[in-house]
Amino acid sequence: MTQRIAGPEIERLIQLLAKVPGLGPRSARRAALHLIKKKEQLLQPLSAAMAEAVDKVRVCSVCGNVDTADPCTVCSDPRRDTATLIVVEDVSDLWALERAGAMNARFHVLGGTLSPLDGIGPDDLNIAGLVSRVAAGGVAEIILAVNATVEGQTTAHYITDQLGGLGVKVTRLAHGVPVGGELDYLDEGTLAAALKARTVF
Amino acid sequence: MTQRIAGPEIERLIQLLAKVPGLGPRSARRAALHLIKKKEQLLQPLSAAMAEAVDKVRVCSVCGNVDTADPCTVCSDPRRDTATLIVVEDVSDLWALERAGAMNARFHVLGGTLSPLDGIGPDDLNIAGLVSRVAAGGVAEIILAVNATVEGQTTAHYITDQLGGLGVKVTRLAHGVPVGGELDYLDEGTLAAALKARTVF
Repeated sequence: MTQRIAGPEIERLIQLLAKVPGLGPRSARRAALHLIKKKEQLLQPLSAAMAEAVDKVRVCSVCGNVDTADPCTVCSDPRRDTATLIVVEDVSDLWALERAGAMNARFHVLGGTLSPLDGIGPDDLNIAGLVSRVAAGGVAEIILAVNATVEGQTTAHYITDQLGGLGVKVTRLAHGVPVGGELDYLDEGTLAAALKARTVF
Repeated sequence: MTQRIAGPEIERLIQLLAKVPGLGPRSARRAALHLIKKKEQLLQPLSAAMAEAVDKVRVCSVCGNVDTADPCTVCSDPRRDTATLIVVEDVSDLWALERAGAMNARFHVLGGTLSPLDGIGPDDLNIAGLVSRVAAGGVAEIILAVNATVEGQTTAHYITDQLGGLGVKVTRLAHGVPVGGELDYLDEGTLAAALKARTVF
């Protein structure tokens, strides 16, 4: 901008909005203007909701999820199967699996993957917490729902090693063709895995 | 979602973020998680910036811009040419023209366009304010920078009628090929206008 067109408070709001994932500098400007126009209906409630989140959100001491309660809503849900733990890299993966709604299990959030190049070792992840949860008993199966990346698979192998001798069944997500996916667009690795793991029709 | 995975405060934050232009339900979830993770660096300052905007932002009583000062930064800038007024539909257009930085003029925000079908008449727009600004004297030229839509052009004609007899020159933005635009992708109306308004090379 060649010259200031608005007070520093508005510029600051735009700059901060531009850091929100999904918004860039241009859309942050549009978002700021929309928020200012809908001051009572949107800007004020959103500001209050954010202040409340700052105040109340904490990391669950059991599983690593973020919630306003500790233990979190998932961990303290009595209807969930306590014998199955789904291990995920990140809270966003936990939320994605919950949206799928396929399993009524509990979770364990690692907080990342092993990545020697980035200096992330086992002590930087919530792996010790997982081992002690399993060692405490009551867990029959660990589902490793880590990303199908090199780092994810390395982490899965490391965790499997750590859990050896604790008598827990360790499984991982199936590889295959995504539901609704077209073969033509899939990579060779996925197609090979889907062929190998073919099931009777 | 089949079951609650987080406290109502987080759900409410996601719902409100989903109403921000540029964010949908899916990206609002991602944004909420990112904000929660960057609590100190982003969520807290953003919440404070929004609260400050709620508190301080007002509509400029002179031109209709939004700012934390009234008259706004543009209206109270002494280095601006007071003889030229650029008439725009919306504050976002004012900001867009300011970003272009081509003219050091002042503005007048109409707050929309005439649209009989939507029940928007002259009294719903800031047209009377424009007429009295011009009638007060000191304005030599009115640049109608309204959108090149039917409503925009109707509004431009109406304003020109209202300003008749006040001895002010009324101009409008040029039609033509956008800078960097490819002819092949332009509509017939634009091409015809660009041909008609051709200039000596």
